Amino acid sequence: MICTCTMNPSLDYYMEFDKELNGNDAVNRSSLEYYEAGGKGINVSIVLNNLGIPTRAFGFVGGFTKDFYISLLAKYENIRPNFTYINGHTRINVKCSAEGQWTDLNASGPIITAEDMDNLKHKVSTLYSQDYFVLAGHTQEYLCSSAEEMLKNAIKDEVKVVLDTNAPLVRKILPCHPFMIKTTMEELPALIDREVKNEADAIAGAKELHEAGARYVIVSDHSRLAYLICKEGTYRVQLTRDEKYVSFVGTGDSLIAGFLMNYMRTKNPLDSFRFGVSCGSATAYSKGLATRANIDNFYETTKVEKIA
Amino acid sequence: MICTCTMNPSLDYYMEFDKELNGNDAVNRSSLEYYEAGGKGINVSIVLNNLGIPTRAFGFVGGFTKDFYISLLAKYENIRPNFTYINGHTRINVKCSAEGQWTDLNASGPIITAEDMDNLKHKVSTLYSQDYFVLAGHTQEYLCSSAEEMLKNAIKDEVKVVLDTNAPLVRKILPCHPFMIKTTMEELPALIDREVKNEADAIAGAKELHEAGARYVIVSDHSRLAYLICKEGTYRVQLTRDEKYVSFVGTGDSLIAGFLMNYMRTKNPLDSFRFGVSCGSATAYSKGLATRANIDNFYETTKVEKIA
Repeated sequence: MICTCTMNPSLDYYMEFDKELNGNDAVNRSSLEYYEAGGKGINVSIVLNNLGIPTRAFGFVGGFTKDFYISLLAKYENIRPNFTYINGHTRINVKCSAEGQWTDLNASGPIITAEDMDNLKHKVSTLYSQDYFVLAGHTQEYLCSSAEEMLKNAIKDEVKVVLDTNAPLVRKILPCHPFMIKTTMEELPALIDREVKNEADAIAGAKELHEAGARYVIVSDHSRLAYLICKEGTYRVQLTRDEKYVSFVGTGDSLIAGFLMNYMRTKNPLDSFRFGVSCGSATAYSKGLATRANIDNFYETTKVEKIA
Repeated sequence: MICTCTMNPSLDYYMEFDKELNGNDAVNRSSLEYYEAGGKGINVSIVLNNLGIPTRAFGFVGGFTKDFYISLLAKYENIRPNFTYINGHTRINVKCSAEGQWTDLNASGPIITAEDMDNLKHKVSTLYSQDYFVLAGHTQEYLCSSAEEMLKNAIKDEVKVVLDTNAPLVRKILPCHPFMIKTTMEELPALIDREVKNEADAIAGAKELHEAGARYVIVSDHSRLAYLICKEGTYRVQLTRDEKYVSFVGTGDSLIAGFLMNYMRTKNPLDSFRFGVSCGSATAYSKGLATRANIDNFYETTKVEKIA
């Protein structure tokens, strides 16, 4: 089973305005509002749902937003919510759009107690060698040492750990050999502690992460290129980029979902990378996350080249 | 009993930012979030609560925000929630503040069905001659004809109706002799169908509303002046205005609350106006709505003059 974990999920509150937001002591009136369950781990679960793959969703939810958050997941029949219930309110992030412009208002989120974290650790301790555990999204600073322990225990139990979270936490897990590290050009410098100016820097940095212990390292800049570094070699995909893209939100999460879906079946990292990148592209070029239909189109045109 | 009614209440979501909002394709992160029960009718109930006066709160609430909205009112021991439960979600209005600047993002709100409106009408039909019914805040356009019928029935039952809502609805009720109309300099033109450029225009307009049937007409511009027009004459209060004011949000609702509280006890419109204006000032110069302690300070310095 693939399990995803979102430490600080958000109820995403979409507000659409007819004219540009006025932020200067003004009242703005939206013409349309709707809600979606948000969070990077949940995004991975949603794309896997769309691919027909069941996942268990871990993380912390609570307060008046809890039941509604979970009810929004009910439409995804392959997602099995397995959240830890907390006292605080799952945060609401506000996503405003008007005339092609967007503004995100992200909240800090509730406090997670030591008991809440113990509850999550207990859930994760039930996973075993057939499982994948994807920790995606920011991990609250004060939870990092507990999360580190949780991840190390999972790896000891032969769970395949996939990380797309804070750099310091990822660095601590590297020596234990996580299954995959997903990062971006922007996040890579924090992982390798030096600047990344060009492709050579990115590849050298990703190789370092691979040598430090990660079995697969994927680096993307969402809009132009993606790299896979593993013992089989270094691979690159050039992404089609035209003006029809909708949003890069969720592309990295889609890449993880696609890679894992394909890998479970084929154990072929190259084809999994190709399929993962197709999922990322499908998300970038559609409203919402990738669906099976648009992924297949991108898979045809996605070409992986070996560069080292 | 004083009853208040809010047709489109809002769960107010306050987000505080450390720096100015960037509305241009940007992510803004808040440092603090909290919620309050919002709506003009609810504001009237809250100020009356603070004055020790019980109210029943009518209006439409529903969806995942309903129970939380009602739970926020639990701290006001004198408010008795008597809402009509609807299928849609009570809207969330986002109130952003950063470095002294504020931005409001107001949502349109849920659909109210004919059955929901019938439910409210039934509740209001139980009121009688000892009751006050305060309809404050915007009434959805498609509910106006039902609201008109509801208000006319209430007045037939000798309920004292107080209106601070859409001009066309207020105009239709005027011939039935509502107890009070509360308006502002900005809203007055819509009520009298002509421009209001100065004090003489405002007084002439308010007199017209009085002659058209409203027993008491109060016009304020929140920051400088307030007028009371009734059969006893025309009265004016000059408001102290210095830079210490916090916000004019809720000042009109506070004025209504204070007037009614005093009027129930004294039946003296002049002193009630003075007390009402004191409540409005107390709200303008404090964080949140007026409390008993700061109202008394303003009462001492508020002077009502007869001008006609």
